[in-house]
Amino acid sequence: MRHLLDTRTLAREDALRILDVAEDMRDTQSREIKKLPTLRGKTVVNLFFEDSTRTRISFEAAAKRLSADVINFSAKGSSVSKGESLQDTAQTLQAMGADAVVIRHGASGAPHTLATSGWISAGVLNAGDGTHEHPTQALLDAFTIRKRFFGEDSRGRDLAGLHVAIVGDILHSRVARSNVWLLTTLGATVTLVAPPTLVPQDVSAWPVTIAYDLDEAIATAPDAVMMLRIQLERMNAAYFPTEREYSRRWGLDAARVAALPSASIVMHPGPMNRGLEISADAADSPRSTVLEQVANGVSVRMAALYLLLAGERPTNHAQEEAR
Amino acid sequence: MRHLLDTRTLAREDALRILDVAEDMRDTQSREIKKLPTLRGKTVVNLFFEDSTRTRISFEAAAKRLSADVINFSAKGSSVSKGESLQDTAQTLQAMGADAVVIRHGASGAPHTLATSGWISAGVLNAGDGTHEHPTQALLDAFTIRKRFFGEDSRGRDLAGLHVAIVGDILHSRVARSNVWLLTTLGATVTLVAPPTLVPQDVSAWPVTIAYDLDEAIATAPDAVMMLRIQLERMNAAYFPTEREYSRRWGLDAARVAALPSASIVMHPGPMNRGLEISADAADSPRSTVLEQVANGVSVRMAALYLLLAGERPTNHAQEEAR
Amino acid sequence: MRHLLDTRTLAREDALRILDVAEDMRDTQSREIKKLPTLRGKTVVNLFFEDSTRTRISFEAAAKRLSADVINFSAKGSSVSKGESLQDTAQTLQAMGADAVVIRHGASGAPHTLATSGWISAGVLNAGDGTHEHPTQALLDAFTIRKRFFGEDSRGRDLAGLHVAIVGDILHSRVARSNVWLLTTLGATVTLVAPPTLVPQDVSAWPVTIAYDLDEAIATAPDAVMMLRIQLERMNAAYFPTEREYSRRWGLDAARVAALPSASIVMHPGPMNRGLEISADAADSPRSTVLEQVANGVSVRMAALYLLLAGERPTNHAQEEAR
Repeated sequence: MRHLLDTRTLAREDALRILDVAEDMRDTQSREIKKLPTLRGKTVVNLFFEDSTRTRISFEAAAKRLSADVINFSAKGSSVSKGESLQDTAQTLQAMGADAVVIRHGASGAPHTLATSGWISAGVLNAGDGTHEHPTQALLDAFTIRKRFFGEDSRGRDLAGLHVAIVGDILHSRVARSNVWLLTTLGATVTLVAPPTLVPQDVSAWPVTIAYDLDEAIATAPDAVMMLRIQLERMNAAYFPTEREYSRRWGLDAARVAALPSASIVMHPGPMNRGLEISADAADSPRSTVLEQVANGVSVRMAALYLLLAGERPTNHAQEEAR
Repeated sequence: MRHLLDTRTLAREDALRILDVAEDMRDTQSREIKKLPTLRGKTVVNLFFEDSTRTRISFEAAAKRLSADVINFSAKGSSVSKGESLQDTAQTLQAMGADAVVIRHGASGAPHTLATSGWISAGVLNAGDGTHEHPTQALLDAFTIRKRFFGEDSRGRDLAGLHVAIVGDILHSRVARSNVWLLTTLGATVTLVAPPTLVPQDVSAWPVTIAYDLDEAIATAPDAVMMLRIQLERMNAAYFPTEREYSRRWGLDAARVAALPSASIVMHPGPMNRGLEISADAADSPRSTVLEQVANGVSVRMAALYLLLAGERPTNHAQEEAR
Repeated sequence: MRHLLDTRTLAREDALRILDVAEDMRDTQSREIKKLPTLRGKTVVNLFFEDSTRTRISFEAAAKRLSADVINFSAKGSSVSKGESLQDTAQTLQAMGADAVVIRHGASGAPHTLATSGWISAGVLNAGDGTHEHPTQALLDAFTIRKRFFGEDSRGRDLAGLHVAIVGDILHSRVARSNVWLLTTLGATVTLVAPPTLVPQDVSAWPVTIAYDLDEAIATAPDAVMMLRIQLERMNAAYFPTEREYSRRWGLDAARVAALPSASIVMHPGPMNRGLEISADAADSPRSTVLEQVANGVSVRMAALYLLLAGERPTNHAQEEAR
């Protein structure tokens, strides 16, 4: 695996490999391992053109647990904002010896451009690009679902037979897109639930079912309900319901949680708008996997960094003894 | 010791233990030790809701000397400023594997909430909360006083018999509060010196003497005079003297330093407003402990991190050989 | 070597020593070495009063490859911006145990003040001060020239016999100044090419030739043409040509590159304004050393940190075995 750019083109076996290696990053108590020497001498650059403290520190924690050196590069206030091109930034990072570049960018496709331009040989990990994809989020979601439904010893297993409902602003959500591709690749069925104005035009080409009514979707007994974060700054747009209307019709509250099958789980990528797309009791219920998702995020990102940097690229440190 | 939240409830023996371990963090030339493997594999998160470069880098240097991984989380520009709750932030950091959270927050009590809410099991270190407390500042001040008056071999010793005058804006000062509780717990007597408008309402319940005239306080021959930093942005408030008036009546200058007993020391938590609460010659005099306080801050924070993370919590690295 | 403040006073043998040690920081494939234990337990502080992501991460990568702990201190939003003096900041960093301070400052001479004031014993590295100097940039440029013209095994060799043309806003350029002093110290001849309004008043005292016409300078067959970055915010100043005029008369394009001798190289310190001082094809041509300069920057900064911190200062880690 050279890059991790999207889940749309991620092969089933590669996806399972990441999930399986993520299992290896956890100890026997299913807690993530705190320090491995695997990527010692490797440099991981977090190149963030948009703020995202959560995603940045999850990648930072993952890289540091593998003993990589981490350099944070916030593009704000840098020469990038003075008109430097992505090409020059990328080539500069490469020349400085970056082995992997974790990129978050407002423009859909920027990570793909970075990886395929020939500018760099470093591994590229997409940490969210525009409304396009956020593949490590989908991988940690799939990992969380697999672990909840099939337990600790689920290596090699896909998600066949499971049904996931993704609820909210599908139109603008890279999390939704990455999950649609990955979950269906892994054999799950996916229903998207959204106000009609927040469904993408091209959704008929997606391998999903569409629903406009959350209660009807819940009545189909999904195994997982994944609530998307509402971007509050979009709330005054013409195509958007009011907060109150949104919450009433597409928010997950205690009553709707109670209407789910007893084994169903409640997911959210965080940070949550409590009281808007999810009520506090739904967020904190035992069915909620919100914090497992965060913890699994570190393991999945360790796995992705490992597979990009140690698994298939030559390294002088392979023989180094573990400490 | 599970957390370090305040000095008001810090027991005498716990305070002395921190000071004694801080001594252990220094080499035979009384310089702080540069690298210990003690906290290898531990993750320390600096969660700063207010800017404070000095305090942040002191904790960062302390954690790195103990070989912990450090992740800086400035809450500005993060999802916290988009309305994420302290609860969600805390639980997220915990889920990512934080072993300790160093928190600076504008609201008094935020670290206590974090530690006692049940949201996290990580150790919480208060790096300053509102006008409430700044316990590591008081500990480094006590450490500095003990070292100056009782020398290198002062382990186990408290501050009985010493008299400390704290001068300035007591009303808004968390440094003053933390010092009042700690210094008196350790047996020192404390006099607060301030304009009448800058003395807290409830000060009659504190174990201190109040003075309004700095020269009278100096005439009582204190062993240490601790000058507080003036927040310049408060200078136009109704209860505040003008800068010139403040400096003349409550500022420490060469004449006032000369009026102190020859063994007395001059303290300041930094950063100093030279020419306002302290004159340049007072700041740079041999009696000034300002830079010792900074150096001791790293040792005291190493001790606190050590006691929270290595001393009483289980660790897999206890047997690791020192390198 | 105690500090690296400028190239004007840098002796020829010290300059060569830095270049030679920089060679040692590269492996047999002429790639920089990824991890050395040399500066383990040392703390390097990046003290940046001006934003400069490129220079900061180059120093950060260099220090981390030598296993130093790195603390980034952006003076924006810190107590420095609240009026703390450079003296207090410096003494604070020293007290916290900084072994080296890498300083970028808007005021010419600030690094010199820091190093010679007696405030600190830490090594000071000038990472750019006002319009004064940027010595590591000149060192990496000299290293790049030496490597291109004399190959891998050029240790000990200076630049005698080579001719370098530096083109652009000489008046405001610390890069130009540092290169003038270093290149001439190393035996090269230097021509400055600039609009008359962008030549410093005192240039007659410099060991250089002045030209106002780029084509005439190119006709003299320089071995290296070093293009300076244009500060776009200066473009409306009275003494400055328009962008179009500047680009036409002092910009390097394909035609001018073709007029150079076949062995000549094209240099730029980055980030480039493509289409302004350099055209895209000139920037990306095989003669361009832009990315080599970036890569060499890490090696040269490793060498400087090594010589300041390990070479001549006492260390307890000298006997530590390489890992």
